Amino acid sequence: MRFVNFSPDGKERQLGVLQGSTIVSLGVATLEQLLAEGKDLTAFANAQHASAAEYQLSEVTLLPPLTKPGKIICVGLNYADHTKESPYDQPAYPTLFPRFNTSLIAHGAPMIRPLVSDSLDFEGEMAVVLKSGGRHIPLAKALDCVAGYSIFNDGSVREFQFKAPQWTVGKNFDGTGAFGPALVTADEVPAGGKGLKLETRLNGTVVQSANTDDMLFDAASLISIISEAITLAAGDVIVSGTPSGIGWAREPKLIMRDGDVCEVEIEGLGVLSNVVRDEAPQR
Amino acid sequence: MRFVNFSPDGKERQLGVLQGSTIVSLGVATLEQLLAEGKDLTAFANAQHASAAEYQLSEVTLLPPLTKPGKIICVGLNYADHTKESPYDQPAYPTLFPRFNTSLIAHGAPMIRPLVSDSLDFEGEMAVVLKSGGRHIPLAKALDCVAGYSIFNDGSVREFQFKAPQWTVGKNFDGTGAFGPALVTADEVPAGGKGLKLETRLNGTVVQSANTDDMLFDAASLISIISEAITLAAGDVIVSGTPSGIGWAREPKLIMRDGDVCEVEIEGLGVLSNVVRDEAPQR
Repeated sequence: MRFVNFSPDGKERQLGVLQGSTIVSLGVATLEQLLAEGKDLTAFANAQHASAAEYQLSEVTLLPPLTKPGKIICVGLNYADHTKESPYDQPAYPTLFPRFNTSLIAHGAPMIRPLVSDSLDFEGEMAVVLKSGGRHIPLAKALDCVAGYSIFNDGSVREFQFKAPQWTVGKNFDGTGAFGPALVTADEVPAGGKGLKLETRLNGTVVQSANTDDMLFDAASLISIISEAITLAAGDVIVSGTPSGIGWAREPKLIMRDGDVCEVEIEGLGVLSNVVRDEAPQR
Repeated sequence: MRFVNFSPDGKERQLGVLQGSTIVSLGVATLEQLLAEGKDLTAFANAQHASAAEYQLSEVTLLPPLTKPGKIICVGLNYADHTKESPYDQPAYPTLFPRFNTSLIAHGAPMIRPLVSDSLDFEGEMAVVLKSGGRHIPLAKALDCVAGYSIFNDGSVREFQFKAPQWTVGKNFDGTGAFGPALVTADEVPAGGKGLKLETRLNGTVVQSANTDDMLFDAASLISIISEAITLAAGDVIVSGTPSGIGWAREPKLIMRDGDVCEVEIEGLGVLSNVVRDEAPQR
């Protein structure tokens, strides 16, 4: 099942199930709340269906599937060919960095190029949304924690990413973390989201092409390894890393600019599309 | 005023004002909620005082002043003498990394040394708690956003901090981020928390001794600079960095072990004390 967080009128927020281009509303609910309550998403949706209102996808505003995850843990250097184009040696342990909720945007929303830097870059990635968590999760049980998968464009302001040894600021500009369009429940894709084709396109040209099988630490490994240190919880999101092809590693650099359209497509998960817009000038 | 988050019975959670060793209860409220609502903390406390229950500090369990800040943004390499003892050159921009809420512990709670590594280190720091935020906050208005200050012991599992280029995991082990004892409102200390003596003691021996004036980016600068990229909000916490003296940079290394007592004292903000305990073995 494909869950979308949407607003029919730009104000009220509803949860819905996406069926083709139709959204069957589940009323006022959030995935954060349902996951925290341990609800089975599919059972919840089936129970609400009878009297549900329907909307056309084209007439609503989408929001990120979760707007306030408890944690957003991003993984860097998780595809060997991307590490080779980076200034880093391949570490033997996952490279983790945060996204704060303030940076999230939805499918269809503009990705914002901040005025302070002309270095906004794309990173197509698979996002893993948890329905349960804990500490010291064994590898064999890690996928039991997964509610589903989604798509992330980890928009990176490269100049700021490398102003200091930690990437946090370059990965957290407002309006740079595109997430969606839907949370696709785990039963809809192969276990662990393995074997899915991932493609990023900029203005229609393929700029990243990979398969989630190429991840050095797969979804199950990430959950198990992270939980060796950190208690994971329902509603946490792990953004699993990007393959090669980023604009900043090219010669000349390929930088996203106002009006560019960036799409990330992952087999079975949909297409996440965002137009780049310059930040509005300060008054 | 000094606000503490406490539990009289280990279950119910209350907010209180600390007066000497007495806590005047403000009932069931949280700083997160009051700050999000834009309440003036001192006015709120004064309005509740009349019929308030009192507790002795020694008979309650303290919690971190905020247990679920919207964001915890930590600053690395913010004292030149600490950068010199680190493997890094001094960057000209703040080095930012996250704490997730899952790592927080209170004054008086055990700081947990994870069984996977014998490299738990101390870092005494001043924490800055925001009462308002925004984007592109001018330096001259930055301190208007500060609710108050507290103390942080940024317990760091060094081996994990340096397993990959990003420090996130080594800074986020469960039970390693000590925060408290109180939120001290900004009016109680010099503007920006400047000029405060900071001292870390391990088993009574002084291991870090500095002054918040030594920070390369002071509280106002951090707020203004971070907000150039990231929308800050009431309830966000900025943990402003540690001075020299960390155990990992010593020869031989000074590592915290079960039974050690680590105290961080900041002039006017109190003493944050935690005993180190080994993680309980997995069953």
